[in-house]
Amino acid sequence: MTDSPLSGPPLAFSDPTYRAAVVDLLGAIAYGEMSAFERLAEDAKMAPDLEDKAELAAMASREIGHFAGLRGRLAELGADPYEAMAPFRGPIDAFHVHTAPRDWLEGLVKAYVGDGLAADFYREIAAFVDADTREIIFDSLEDSGHAEFVVDRVRKAIVVDHRVGGRLALWGRRLMGEALSQAQRVAAERDALCALLSGGVDRPGMDLAAISRMFTRLTENHAKRMAALGLAS
Amino acid sequence: MTDSPLSGPPLAFSDPTYRAAVVDLLGAIAYGEMSAFERLAEDAKMAPDLEDKAELAAMASREIGHFAGLRGRLAELGADPYEAMAPFRGPIDAFHVHTAPRDWLEGLVKAYVGDGLAADFYREIAAFVDADTREIIFDSLEDSGHAEFVVDRVRKAIVVDHRVGGRLALWGRRLMGEALSQAQRVAAERDALCALLSGGVDRPGMDLAAISRMFTRLTENHAKRMAALGLAS
Repeated sequence: MTDSPLSGPPLAFSDPTYRAAVVDLLGAIAYGEMSAFERLAEDAKMAPDLEDKAELAAMASREIGHFAGLRGRLAELGADPYEAMAPFRGPIDAFHVHTAPRDWLEGLVKAYVGDGLAADFYREIAAFVDADTREIIFDSLEDSGHAEFVVDRVRKAIVVDHRVGGRLALWGRRLMGEALSQAQRVAAERDALCALLSGGVDRPGMDLAAISRMFTRLTENHAKRMAALGLAS
Repeated sequence: MTDSPLSGPPLAFSDPTYRAAVVDLLGAIAYGEMSAFERLAEDAKMAPDLEDKAELAAMASREIGHFAGLRGRLAELGADPYEAMAPFRGPIDAFHVHTAPRDWLEGLVKAYVGDGLAADFYREIAAFVDADTREIIFDSLEDSGHAEFVVDRVRKAIVVDHRVGGRLALWGRRLMGEALSQAQRVAAERDALCALLSGGVDRPGMDLAAISRMFTRLTENHAKRMAALGLAS
């Protein structure tokens, strides 16, 4: 055995609770990417012109590229990738049903703010997994410059009609609220995933103060993204 | 000037009719890829499970990857990519409206047979353009193994219920008929593109006999694809 606890699965994964937590985490992110694809492809229909439609289609495609990496990792761990995703269909689908954008701009804000929030959250959790898994998760959450496009379109729309800013600011708050509510639902249902955050005998975890600091970081980053769009948070 | 007529745009593109034809061809393929993305993303909703949905989403994403290459080439030629696509929205959208799949299997057959037919057709036309443009077109039409997935699913469905084969065979004929009808519409409207096929003083082209042979090749390849799916053509 030459594995170190940080680089190779075998040692860490001998703990079934740890393995279950990692499978959960990868399953949640993978299903999130798949449903982000569906939602972005759907929102692309609302694009005002072909150029904007192509941008959103490219964002959707990027999600599927990431999805493939996560699915591969799940298979490597001996998990059925689609079984791993199944428990997260309910909460993630509910999030999308409750935050269906009414127009193109709401779709853009959701893509930027919602994906940013989800990515921050998963990155926080990924701090508690082995290096290999963490790297795959970080890769899958990487943004490839499409954010600029959203910022440009939203800011331009506010210049044209400043009332748009008020409406989208409310929308951003609603996205945050709905995301927290679904995250809570997942936390209540997925014991292994929660155990990952709270740590174990041989694994560091978060106490309540640390969890509170994590929420502060998530909220601050959300506010930064809203500000980048020219919106109050 | 070190350009050869085969490798570099400048010489060939000094003929405005030739340039217009190439812009048309790239615009048609690019819009075709974009609308294939939309249609595949839409059809993915009908997938019986997450695994099949992921396969169709991956096919959709591949179209957008190709789209980006064509858009880049149009920009290199000094054309507005979205203006270049505009004339083909009507015929290509009409094709999709007239061939909206009623279920998952019709969607799969359309993805395989329809895209295959379009790819064959564009490859035939690409024989008449400069080497650089041709390479970009060939790359954009490359299949990356998703065909196996369609063949597998359609063949399995026919085993379960052989009547499915009769229905899908009719569907394949309808796809072919609708594709020809829209291709004819494009031919009637886009003079430069037609001129490309018929050749010029310094460019080889197709006479009527050659065009007839091209249709024979297209029909034969269509029949091969139908046979691969286990369907009569």
